[in-house]
Formats: sequence, C-alpha cells, structure tokens
Amino acid sequence: MNRRELLKISSAALFSGAAVSGANAQRVASVVERWNIFELALDGPTAGNPFIDVTFEATFELGNRRITCAGFYDGDGKYKVRFMPDETGVWNYTTASNRAELNGQTGRFECTAAREGNRGPVRVRDGFHFGYEDGTPYVECGTTCYAWAFQPDQTQRQTIETLRSSPFNKLRMCIFPKWYRYNRSEPPIYPFPRTADTNDYSTFNAAYFQHFDDLIGQLRTIGVQADLILFHPYDKWGYSSMPADVDDRYLRYVIARYAAYRNVWWSLANEFDLLKAKNNSDWDRFARIVTDEDPYGHLRSVHYSRVMYDYSRVWCTHAGVQSYAFEKASDWRADWGKPVVFDECQYEGNIPTNWGSITGDELVRRFWLAAARGVYCGHGETYLDPNDVLWWAKGGVLRGTSPPRIAFLRKLLEETIAVGPGPIGFTFESASFGTRAKRANNYVLFVYYDVHAPAQASIDLPAGFAYRAEYVDSLKMARTPLGDNYSGTAELKLPGTPFGSVWFYRKGEA
Amino acid sequence: MNRRELLKISSAALFSGAAVSGANAQRVASVVERWNIFELALDGPTAGNPFIDVTFEATFELGNRRITCAGFYDGDGKYKVRFMPDETGVWNYTTASNRAELNGQTGRFECTAAREGNRGPVRVRDGFHFGYEDGTPYVECGTTCYAWAFQPDQTQRQTIETLRSSPFNKLRMCIFPKWYRYNRSEPPIYPFPRTADTNDYSTFNAAYFQHFDDLIGQLRTIGVQADLILFHPYDKWGYSSMPADVDDRYLRYVIARYAAYRNVWWSLANEFDLLKAKNNSDWDRFARIVTDEDPYGHLRSVHYSRVMYDYSRVWCTHAGVQSYAFEKASDWRADWGKPVVFDECQYEGNIPTNWGSITGDELVRRFWLAAARGVYCGHGETYLDPNDVLWWAKGGVLRGTSPPRIAFLRKLLEETIAVGPGPIGFTFESASFGTRAKRANNYVLFVYYDVHAPAQASIDLPAGFAYRAEYVDSLKMARTPLGDNYSGTAELKLPGTPFGSVWFYRKGEA
Repeated sequence: MNRRELLKISSAALFSGAAVSGANAQRVASVVERWNIFELALDGPTAGNPFIDVTFEATFELGNRRITCAGFYDGDGKYKVRFMPDETGVWNYTTASNRAELNGQTGRFECTAAREGNRGPVRVRDGFHFGYEDGTPYVECGTTCYAWAFQPDQTQRQTIETLRSSPFNKLRMCIFPKWYRYNRSEPPIYPFPRTADTNDYSTFNAAYFQHFDDLIGQLRTIGVQADLILFHPYDKWGYSSMPADVDDRYLRYVIARYAAYRNVWWSLANEFDLLKAKNNSDWDRFARIVTDEDPYGHLRSVHYSRVMYDYSRVWCTHAGVQSYAFEKASDWRADWGKPVVFDECQYEGNIPTNWGSITGDELVRRFWLAAARGVYCGHGETYLDPNDVLWWAKGGVLRGTSPPRIAFLRKLLEETIAVGPGPIGFTFESASFGTRAKRANNYVLFVYYDVHAPAQASIDLPAGFAYRAEYVDSLKMARTPLGDNYSGTAELKLPGTPFGSVWFYRKGEA
Repeated sequence: MNRRELLKISSAALFSGAAVSGANAQRVASVVERWNIFELALDGPTAGNPFIDVTFEATFELGNRRITCAGFYDGDGKYKVRFMPDETGVWNYTTASNRAELNGQTGRFECTAAREGNRGPVRVRDGFHFGYEDGTPYVECGTTCYAWAFQPDQTQRQTIETLRSSPFNKLRMCIFPKWYRYNRSEPPIYPFPRTADTNDYSTFNAAYFQHFDDLIGQLRTIGVQADLILFHPYDKWGYSSMPADVDDRYLRYVIARYAAYRNVWWSLANEFDLLKAKNNSDWDRFARIVTDEDPYGHLRSVHYSRVMYDYSRVWCTHAGVQSYAFEKASDWRADWGKPVVFDECQYEGNIPTNWGSITGDELVRRFWLAAARGVYCGHGETYLDPNDVLWWAKGGVLRGTSPPRIAFLRKLLEETIAVGPGPIGFTFESASFGTRAKRANNYVLFVYYDVHAPAQASIDLPAGFAYRAEYVDSLKMARTPLGDNYSGTAELKLPGTPFGSVWFYRKGEA
C-alpha cells in the first residue's frame, strides 16, 4: 500500500474509535499535521515522586523508522509523551514504563500534510545559512525578550502582538526567571517548589512549565522561533548553581516537554562563562544531553560574555556570538564551518550602558554588516520606560527606529533567496569585490557602502552574465533602479550619501 | 660672562663687520632667531661633479657644544651649510672641505630669543604625546597633500592659504613626484637631470630642491609641520628603484638641505612595503642615515600599506599607521612605547575607492576615537573635481564638513593641555571607565559616546576631587554645561543623541 492509498482510507478505516488501545488512555487527536505535535496523555501513579520514580517513554514507528521519545510527568497523575512527526503517513507507537499501567500501550495516528504557514523546523542550509525543513529559506532575524515569560498576562499578550507585526522570526528567551537591572520582579510561580528561600529540587512545578507550553505554542502560531535559553547567570533563586543531577533532570524534563515544538532552538546558556558554578565538563555534559535527548535535532548553540565559546565543537549547529566584530565574521564562518548569528551585537536604546544604547541607525548598520558577510544579526531594544518595561527584558511594545529597516533588509534577502542560491554580499571595505564576486557566481550580488559615500562606482562583474542594478538606501528604505544591462565593469553614478548599497540581479533569472 | 651679559654686547661688539672671515664669504645674517636658520653660502669649484667630488661641512660651537652639519652644493658654484641653533648666545663655526677655498672658514653669529609663533621643533612629550621644544603642547592634527609641490604656482599659493585658516598643523607631502589616479601630471622640473626617459643620477637639479626650500619655509611661516615623505611607490620616473648609492646620496642631500627647518618631520616612505625594489636592509640603512645625518633629531617614522612596520624599532620616534583599527590603539601605544598617529585612516570624499569615500561625520568620529585613546589622527580629502584637483593629491581648497569639527576637537584638547597634564579620554565601549579614570588621575577626563546615545549616565569619578562637567556634541560643535560640582558617582541626564561626549574638569585647577 503506498502512501496515497493509505491516506485515502485513513480516517474511515484506521481511526474508527479510540486511537489508543490502553484502558486508561485519554482520547487523542487521531490526525496530526506534519511537524505539529501528537500528544499522548496517560493516567499513572501519583504516589511517591512521579518525577523521579516513574520512567515513561514511547517509540513511534513509520515504515522502517523508529523514534523513541521521553515522556514527562505533568502533575495530577498525568503522564505525557509528545511527538513531532516529520513524515506523512500512519505512525504506530508503543509506550514503555517501569509501571504496568504506562507500559505497552499502543496506538496509531495519521500524519497529514503541513498546511500553509507550517514549514517545519529550521535547519542549517547551504553550510552557512538556514532553511525550513520544507525547503523554504529562513532568513534569521532575531530579537530578545529574556524575561517576557514572567510578566503580567497583558504584557505577554502585547509581546505576541508586537512580534506578529515585526520583522523578527526568532526570540531569545529564558526558561529560568531573571534578576538584573530592569528585571526586578519575582516570577508568579517557580520552576521548583519553593519555601522561604529554599528550592525543593526533587520535583518540578508542572504549572511553571505548562506556561511555557502555551508561550512556545503561541510563538509557533505566529511563525517565531523560540530560542530557549536553558541556563543564565542573572539569578537570585539558585537556578544557576543547582546540583548536577538537578541540572540534568531539568534539561531532560525541558527537552521531553518542548522538543516536539517545531519552532524550538536550544541555547545552552546566556553568557555561559559567567555561570561560576559550572565548569567545562558541565557544559560538555549539557551539550550531550541536549544532543542525545532531542529526537529531532533542533538547532543548538550557546552564548558567551567574555570567553568566546569554541563553536567548532560538533554539537553546535551554529554559532550564537555576543560581538559586533563583523570584520571577523568571514573568518569565523570559515573556521567553524557553520552559520554565524551575531545574537547580541548591542541593543538599540538609551540606557546608561554601552550594550544598551546604540542608535537605531547603528543597529540597522550592524544588520547590514552581517548580511554583507553572509552571517546573521540579532535585535534587542532598551529604551528607558517609566514602568521599566524594556523590550529586551520584558517584551511589550517596540519603540525604536530599527525594526522597519530590518524588515526592509529581510525582505530584500528573502526575495533573492526565493529565486536562486541567495545573494552574496560584500562590504565596500573589502577591496577585492570583483575577484570574489567572480568566484562566487551567485545570482544576486550586492555591495554595502557603510560609512562610505562615493559618488561613482566601478564594479567588475562576473564574466558571461548581464545584470540589472539597483541602488538601495538602507536607512531611507528606498530602492532606485540604476540600469538594466550591466556586464564587465559596471560604471555607476551613486548619490554620494552613506549607508547605501548596490544590488546586481543576474538577468534571465529574475 | 653669562648669557644675558653676552646678549647685551652682542651686536655692538661681536658683529661689527662681516660675520664670516673667509675671503670669498658671502655676507650672512649675523643675528639669527633661535630655531631659525643660519645659512652660510660660499663660492666653490664648478668643475667636475661638485655634488660628488666636493666635501663640505661646518662645525658650530657654543660653550662646550659642538654640532657638525653637512653642507650641500646648490648649483652655480654655491656651497651652503644650514644650521638651526637651539640655544641663544654666540655660535662660532669652522668649515671643513676637501677643497682649500671651502676649508677652514670661520665665523660667528648671534642666536637671539625666539619670537612669538616660533616654538621650535616638535618633540615627543610625556611618552605618547607631542610638544614644541619651548614647552608648548602640540596637538597633532595632520592632513595630506602628497603632490602639492608639483602643481601650478597658483594652486600652491591656494594650498598655503587654505592651510593657514585650517585646523591642520602637519602636512604629509612627497619629495618625489607622484603618478597615480588623480595624479597624472609631469612635474615642471625633475630632481635629477632627465633626458628622454633616462635619469642622470650623478647630479641633482638644484632648482628642484630649492623649490622645497621655499615650500617648507612657507609651511614654517604658517606654523605647519612638513612631514616629508622621502620615498613612495607611485612612480613612473624611476625614483622608487634607484641604485643604493643614489638613494643614500639623495637622502644625505635632502637632510643637509632641510634639516635646519624646525618644522621638518621625516617619513621614510609612504607605503614602504609597496616599494618592491627595496628590502628590509635598505629600510634599515635609510633609517640609520636619517638618524645619523640629522643633527637635530627631528621626528622620524615610516608609513605602510599592508605590512605593518615594527614601530617598536628604536629609530622611530612615533608610529605613523595606515589604519582605522582604533580599538587597537591602546595596545599599540603600550607595545611600542611611543606616540601613535593614525596618519591615514581613510579620507573624507566621494571617489570610488574605500579609502577615499568616508563621510565628514565619519572622519570626525575617527578623530574622536583616536583622541579618546590618547592617540592622534590624520585628515585627507578626496572630493571629485572637474579639474581633478583633489586636496589629498594636489592641495587647493577644502570642501568637506570635517575640518571645522576637527578644529573644534583640537581646541578642546589644547585648552586642557594648556593648564594641566592633558585630558585622558575613554570610549564608552570601555566599560571600565571608572576604574581607569581613578588610576589616571588626570586634570580633565572625558568619555566619548560614539554611536551610543544614552539618555542617562552614571560615571564614577576619581575620589577626592570635585568636577565641573560639560556635554560636548562633536558634530554640532556645541558645549553645554551639565553642572558644577560632581564627585563620587556623577549621575547625569544626557540628550540621548549619538556622537556626544562628557568632559569633567577638576575644580580648583581650571
């Protein structure tokens, strides 16, 4: 029976009645869209410590594929396992547990084609770039709201609304609450039961993690990647210095809960090197747990403060640097052999710190400096607010001048990636534009002029092709045709203003 | 007899009649201002090759000091020796030559106090800075007109007029003519006799070098240092690949002629590493010749293109880098232990090259980035011109927006240096402002915000002092008092616009 035939008979024959065979099984959705979540919830023991005492997992099968996913205890006697099918067809599963009532349960569900807007998880593509699993290019364009999960509901709703109409398609966010300037509020609930100032690390507060189910799901709905920060140093509760077994249990719990969300990325830490209670072997162990436990191979990285992480490590799928040394980007790309994201290149804002006070113009400039080197950049916003609601910390609304211009750049990049192998950019500083462009032979070439404001340009184009050229003002967001038929050495008149760029589109392919 | 008594009787008693005792001696000025030029011109042989066959020098004596200066042949049977006295009083001299008529001539002259505007040559001061020999600080503020010496008289006059009303107090200029884009004119006269395309390296065209006497003298009059570039690669005549003995003779000739101009600096080369006919031992030899032959120890350096010169070499008095990596400036200063001048940090202009197309705003920014690290910066201007008269090449007029703002910065620096040990600057990027400022303990502190636009600042001041603070907008050239009595941690409200700076003046010393 081929897949088409199987689909024809699916709901009629295969899924009549309950999808789960066990006696205590909850009724579950019997049809799941590709890259959405199939969740199996079973009732199980409440005695003892279900978080530790009870093992629970399920193995999913389609054809000759078998994928085992760890389950998790969600409180109130509920044991859950989540699975993100990446292939259409009928998946069968079997549970396994050290408790009889959770063991050997079987069932099946149908995975149907993804609908509009669901492109699957983001993967590395072409070595240094990203794309959705369905093949659509993903132009990384991230922002940061570290502690948005711990704000009043209304602020969280506002954050989602702001993101929905923003250019940002990735959000850096912490799983643990944050204590730092402009971040001085207790979370409404703690990840572990807490009495006075003592954490009971033997169990989890399931409600704390259920809230993240909701948030990550909302981000998924609006097409935003959740770049989950697993550890960070800005802590007053003890979560940055938990015992090793608690760290590991926490990681496994988080991965079991959230890995089935297609929009999840894992960031081991924000500023890992500032977590003084951890050493390199801790980070190695965390990397191994994330790599081993996540059945889907979501993107994985880590972020540093002063001590740059060695991003050539195999477990890292990409680099997530804190830097604005874009002149090093090409070397880093080559050295590490993977995509480079300048996740933190300082924020647009006006707070009295160097990292939180660059102008919107400057942040836009940094996005272009990244794009012109084939790497990616991250946004954040830190404008002083009478109620201390700064986007970078709490979310809310955006007030800066960079987002519309970042949107403009993202659109330029997406347009070209949609029709060819993507643009190759150059900064005007690299005097070897002609030579490198010839070698690159891409469909679209562009040169970003940054602080340079030439009134003329003379640009050697790759031989054998004709190009249409366009002048793009990165700040005014203006695109001006320059001419339709350039080849050999293009002699151009330019406006003599800074922060412009010239784009060449190979003709016959546009 | 002390100096004062000697001065009293000087013109009455010592200098009655001719100052020079020789029969053929020309009458020379018997009174010379300190750091001006005493020139002795004698008639001598014209037969053979006076440039090579005839040796000629003079030794000058005052008290127990003896300074021997090489003479030079100036054509038409004239042999000259020039001397820049650095001490008031009566100097005696005796000539020496391998020709009887030039040998053993004696004479004397009185060196009188320097007049207003004559501060002597520029020296290294406080390790990393410069000052005139009379003690006045010299805030280096250079510009570049490589080939101005070879332009029509009117353009040369215009260049002097432009410099006179500009902030620039140093001019980088070539001794040899230049052949490069925007530099495509034959010089009106050649340094060596030239027939068809062949140079006669056995002699010099004295008139070629006389013209530089005039130009260097004019720069001296308007208070501009002549940073003489002795070799450069942009050559179509052969001067970048002369035989070693010609190189050396040329250097000795130039030093004998120009060293007595107090405003001379020596730059071995523009972009030494592009002179493919020279190797390291040539540059070592040139450095030794310049060091040995110049009796006054004028400032010495060399400029590079791609291969950075090792400025820790003892012969270099300062570094003259081609770079805009200001973030390295503090390390370079420390490593080399001498002043660092970013002589070429790209030019304000609009030509189609990366080095000649930065905005005026950006060049001003670079001057500030230099100042904030205790190093110096250089200007150049390359605006397209219908007649190809670009300031950087030919001089003429300035059209950019940077000069008035560079003047503004120079004035700020001079004001503070005039009353104390000079300011110490910080870029806002260096998070350790407070710590370093405390250690520095200077009279004036400032922090330059560059692309940062904070609306608040919180700055730890050195303990034990009160400060007056001023906000300075580097682009609008506006100075706004912030308050009169800051100590401990200064809490400031700032305008939230970029390219500003805050200056703290220690009270009781302003």
